[in-house]
Amino acid sequence: MTPHIVILSTGSELTAGRSVDTNSGWIANQLFELGWKVKKFITLPDDPSLILSELKALQTLAKEKQVLAIMTGGLGPTEDDYTLETVLQFTGKTSYSVEKAKLRLTKIYESRGKEYKDILPSVFRQTHVPEGSKTLDNSVGIAVGFIESLGENSYLVCMPGVPSEMTEMFRRRLVPELKKLYPRENLVHKTKWLWNIGESLFQNEFIEPNREEFFKEAEWGVTANRGYIKCIFQSTNEGLLEKIINRLETQYPKIISDDVFQFVHEQLLKEGLTVSVAESCTGGLLGKKLTEQAGSSVYFMGGFLTYSNQLKTNLLGVPKDSIETYGAVSDEVAKAMVEGLYEKTKTDFGISITGIAGPEGGSEGKPVGTVCFGLKEPNGKVSVHRYIFPGNREAIRENASNTALFLLYQSLKFRTT
Amino acid sequence: MTPHIVILSTGSELTAGRSVDTNSGWIANQLFELGWKVKKFITLPDDPSLILSELKALQTLAKEKQVLAIMTGGLGPTEDDYTLETVLQFTGKTSYSVEKAKLRLTKIYESRGKEYKDILPSVFRQTHVPEGSKTLDNSVGIAVGFIESLGENSYLVCMPGVPSEMTEMFRRRLVPELKKLYPRENLVHKTKWLWNIGESLFQNEFIEPNREEFFKEAEWGVTANRGYIKCIFQSTNEGLLEKIINRLETQYPKIISDDVFQFVHEQLLKEGLTVSVAESCTGGLLGKKLTEQAGSSVYFMGGFLTYSNQLKTNLLGVPKDSIETYGAVSDEVAKAMVEGLYEKTKTDFGISITGIAGPEGGSEGKPVGTVCFGLKEPNGKVSVHRYIFPGNREAIRENASNTALFLLYQSLKFRTT
Repeated sequence: MTPHIVILSTGSELTAGRSVDTNSGWIANQLFELGWKVKKFITLPDDPSLILSELKALQTLAKEKQVLAIMTGGLGPTEDDYTLETVLQFTGKTSYSVEKAKLRLTKIYESRGKEYKDILPSVFRQTHVPEGSKTLDNSVGIAVGFIESLGENSYLVCMPGVPSEMTEMFRRRLVPELKKLYPRENLVHKTKWLWNIGESLFQNEFIEPNREEFFKEAEWGVTANRGYIKCIFQSTNEGLLEKIINRLETQYPKIISDDVFQFVHEQLLKEGLTVSVAESCTGGLLGKKLTEQAGSSVYFMGGFLTYSNQLKTNLLGVPKDSIETYGAVSDEVAKAMVEGLYEKTKTDFGISITGIAGPEGGSEGKPVGTVCFGLKEPNGKVSVHRYIFPGNREAIRENASNTALFLLYQSLKFRTT
Repeated sequence: MTPHIVILSTGSELTAGRSVDTNSGWIANQLFELGWKVKKFITLPDDPSLILSELKALQTLAKEKQVLAIMTGGLGPTEDDYTLETVLQFTGKTSYSVEKAKLRLTKIYESRGKEYKDILPSVFRQTHVPEGSKTLDNSVGIAVGFIESLGENSYLVCMPGVPSEMTEMFRRRLVPELKKLYPRENLVHKTKWLWNIGESLFQNEFIEPNREEFFKEAEWGVTANRGYIKCIFQSTNEGLLEKIINRLETQYPKIISDDVFQFVHEQLLKEGLTVSVAESCTGGLLGKKLTEQAGSSVYFMGGFLTYSNQLKTNLLGVPKDSIETYGAVSDEVAKAMVEGLYEKTKTDFGISITGIAGPEGGSEGKPVGTVCFGLKEPNGKVSVHRYIFPGNREAIRENASNTALFLLYQSLKFRTT
């Protein structure tokens, strides 16, 4: 029994583009893990008439199918918080103050040295819910959530928009209610990454030939990123999922990976290995990515940004001759960069990047997007790798820095010492 | 004449919560600068029946009011790209291949050593638009955008979902069309940046006291970013706007700026000055930001990522004693870093950053978020600057790298030679 799910966010800061709505995606992700797909996101400004007419439209839809509408936002204390008021108008009900929330609010005020009578009416309003609704406790903030009926087996869930309050309420209060309202089988999911392959090629090569065998009982999804695609499979049949992953690994042994960012971080920590970088066209993006996680100072030592040819020579000792003969973007220079890097930093891993991020600077043999990598491994082995990445300047730089991490991943996973 | 604007994004990765829709907010922001507010965002999965019924609902709405629906996504080459197909079904039209796009696609294939006949039909489909629609050229990727009628003075705009393609198409192709379709009084807008100040403080200090005098005839909007807020003012009264900006400059002389990223780029080029960086806690993020624009190789030479203390000493000559006495995050070390940087690179400007990005590593005197900067100016002067930034690790690193650019901006703008 799968409801037709709609997620509704309210907030003028969202429809004005001043904030990005991360709640809807987060909720959808959680629902996907419960085996449910969302049919629609709606975002509305803080405008009671627009919200009311949307609720009416959902009620009409609930006459045709089971609707689950999950709404966030508009339960706060400011004058542009309209959710409760609009729902009361919509249902024709009155509201009451939830005893537990009232006590919580009083305690919070007392802890700040204020009294019950100091509570502003607008703040107090947050403890109210429509009479007869199912309440959802807020263990982080004040505003109480609630579930209203939208029709037969159809529901409207209202939760605060503050992410920390909403996520806690969703996990602890809403999920158990949803499982009661819409009981179903347990779903398993698995994720793999494939590198430098397009979404459509993957679909032609892997999904289509296996559609009959795999994808009647399993669902698949692909997200395209810079340098890789993320493939997600889910099914209630865990054995089938394992078969899919095996086939995928057999078909793409050289370009498949798990979450590279997480693996590199964990494996470097686990093995106690260090890394440094020498970046040209990425200008620091690889270093930035290697230091995104707390604790990266254990393995990331630092490195060089040798954007100009002069600094390639002065700081890393890349021979001027090599740059003149082969060009700054060449296997030879990538190799000299990573060797010079090792001289200076003595880290277990070294990675160099030199490429043409464009839009200018391409040539026949080396189009825009050509990027050369040097990789120095703990056993002293130095290898060079060359790719041609698609896209604009930003895409090429993202591709290059992500692919550098993939090279590091492969070495961490498969190298022989 | 203001249309009722709806922004429609399609993509199962969005409604599954695997990606966050940044397009809708971006578009809303751009439309605000044109003087328009958005009434609704809708996000749908790649499901032709859901898309079709939404288009029909928009068409119905267009009987009551002028509707402008801006749709992104679903124009790519994969089988779950349904926009063109659905619009054809919706309008009852056939499609044709746009000559210019066909040529572009052929050229791209040739540059990769492939021929016209190699182009997959699914890829080729991206050059198609409905007959009689207004086309929107794509100068970044392949998929052509288009504008269809939804009724009298009502339009459906379809653009690719890839942000780099969409934003370019929006700015260069769509905005001129929108200005023709919905002519209106000329709205002027001015944007200023304020550094290290919160949105609500700005509102209390500047908007409220001036509400009567300024904001009856002018609109204001604020976007909060890492390190700065962007204040947008718009009005049909240009004199009033100038008054607002004057008041703002008088009130915030030390923290106000124009677009720092653009100014720094243009001014360095114009003055023929060079810059290099020495980064610790930002791990390369400042270098990455300084190389985002094509042509940055003229002024950005490179620099050092000295994440570990050892490399601060070995590469930049920061005295071990200083690190032990004052700590790696200190005015003294920031100064030694930028002086060591100058020794190695001899660039006109040098910037060093050392800070505590957290979540660990804070102390009483130096909480998480403390960041010290060294700035070396063309006249040889070296100064140090210290900030405490709010937020998590990512926010602190963004704040720090943006603030470094603000320091560079101030020096470029106000320095005495």
